[in-house]
Amino acid sequence: MTFQVTILGSGSASPLPGRHFSAQVLRVEHECFLIDCGEGTQYRLLEQKIRPGKLRAIFISHLHGDHYFGLLGLLNSLSLGKRTDELFLFGPQGLGDILTEVFRHSNTRLSYPLHYHELNAEQPGLIWSTPCMTVHTLPLRHRVPCTGFLFREQPKAHRIIKEKIVPAMTIAQLRQLKEGQDVLDEHGTLLYRNADYTTLPPRPRSYAYCSDTAYLPELVPHLQETDMLYHEATFRDDLAGRASTTFHSTAGQAARIAKGAQVSKLLIGHLSSRYLDPEASLAEARAIFPDTYMAVEGETFEVPAR
Amino acid sequence: MTFQVTILGSGSASPLPGRHFSAQVLRVEHECFLIDCGEGTQYRLLEQKIRPGKLRAIFISHLHGDHYFGLLGLLNSLSLGKRTDELFLFGPQGLGDILTEVFRHSNTRLSYPLHYHELNAEQPGLIWSTPCMTVHTLPLRHRVPCTGFLFREQPKAHRIIKEKIVPAMTIAQLRQLKEGQDVLDEHGTLLYRNADYTTLPPRPRSYAYCSDTAYLPELVPHLQETDMLYHEATFRDDLAGRASTTFHSTAGQAARIAKGAQVSKLLIGHLSSRYLDPEASLAEARAIFPDTYMAVEGETFEVPAR
Repeated sequence: MTFQVTILGSGSASPLPGRHFSAQVLRVEHECFLIDCGEGTQYRLLEQKIRPGKLRAIFISHLHGDHYFGLLGLLNSLSLGKRTDELFLFGPQGLGDILTEVFRHSNTRLSYPLHYHELNAEQPGLIWSTPCMTVHTLPLRHRVPCTGFLFREQPKAHRIIKEKIVPAMTIAQLRQLKEGQDVLDEHGTLLYRNADYTTLPPRPRSYAYCSDTAYLPELVPHLQETDMLYHEATFRDDLAGRASTTFHSTAGQAARIAKGAQVSKLLIGHLSSRYLDPEASLAEARAIFPDTYMAVEGETFEVPAR
Repeated sequence: MTFQVTILGSGSASPLPGRHFSAQVLRVEHECFLIDCGEGTQYRLLEQKIRPGKLRAIFISHLHGDHYFGLLGLLNSLSLGKRTDELFLFGPQGLGDILTEVFRHSNTRLSYPLHYHELNAEQPGLIWSTPCMTVHTLPLRHRVPCTGFLFREQPKAHRIIKEKIVPAMTIAQLRQLKEGQDVLDEHGTLLYRNADYTTLPPRPRSYAYCSDTAYLPELVPHLQETDMLYHEATFRDDLAGRASTTFHSTAGQAARIAKGAQVSKLLIGHLSSRYLDPEASLAEARAIFPDTYMAVEGETFEVPAR
């Protein structure tokens, strides 16, 4: 099953040629979601040949421009493209007011229903559940209210062992087995023990997006055994003081979070524009957490299964 | 003297690969101005190697996103770049409120003074005068309040004919001659007739920017003998009805305005995304006004002298 992330932009707030503002596309099975939407994201979607009309929901972590200034244009373009499918938007307090003000002055009526859900940046919690995944928020620590997101696949059905299928089994009994239940007869007597007829489904995979936060060890329990973690790495450890005062993290700190939470794979990005070469950031993180990768724009990362 | 326009973006509201949203840089002598600022403009400036810190003022024609969604990010980036020079911003009613709301939620205090001047979209008028130019507004007819801009060089000094300089002339007398005055003695007797000692300066050149407007022949008297005119040409004459209902113009209509106003050169742009090849729009305009050029992104157009 598809569970992958395509990096559209992983730069920080100052623009550099070839490095764009934060945005990622998450694909879970046939569904497509956007995480953050920095200025120019609609052009990045064009470049990656991802039809923006396919997006089912957009998640905005916080109201610093490099994470959402592309949202206004994208919502507008979806309307010009005559989208009619509903779109879900999850964002911080204030985003709704900004959109209302902007669309009022442009006299815009969107062609599609936009369902806006204001996030509580103080408390972690389940914010959405679809047939393919759940989404939880992760409170981050930044200069403005900021929320990370934890995306987890819905549990899969148990797999029936084909050779064990008994001709007398009914469809309803097969369904029970797939749901992980034992099958009993009307008297409660065991007919088919689940473990004898099925194998366990793969563990639901998870992806966490932690963008713009001071070093926050309190995140570790929330991220425990996450399969893939994106964590900002604006600075390097030699500038840990600057990271702290600006409420950002270093590459080393991102790696410490990944190691503490025993994630499988770490992506880092949001490097300060002072770092024209990302190799030293990558090396700093890999010294602590070897399975670290740079969130290179245009690359797609599969969320690994355990 | 420099008086030129560089096209950063001349697409219309729907994004296309390689065609960007409206933005132009105007250079008058050593000063640099931005006209409209669609999403991604700060990246276009980077591509053209124009330092955004050099911008002295920004003019926004109206509050449709394809003309200003890049402003938020640009103002932000100027602040991250620690600009301290004041910046002038001219824009429609409502722009100030939007900026205030956006910067409130991002907790942004700009590093430089931003002088915002709200435009009156109903009346033409002088809005700014600098040592190098004057700027007048041109009310356009669009779905939201929309303003064109007429940029005109300040009159130049008369040129002294060197061979005619008389040793007895004082600095003050030379200044009078440069200002186009005759020089009289204390009794009012003519000492030096201006026409004998100077040649006329070149006529001040002018550039008009008319973005997003229904066909508006009332513009013609305001544009009389403008040296270069940019006029939107979203549609072609076969879609004049669609142009009218959406308050846009056709290439033919842009050319009729140029011809009526006897401008020297016409630039057209803002072509609908349905026109992948701009040649037919150019041909339609040139049949009426031969000196028409496509506002190609990345190209610089000198404002011609008469």
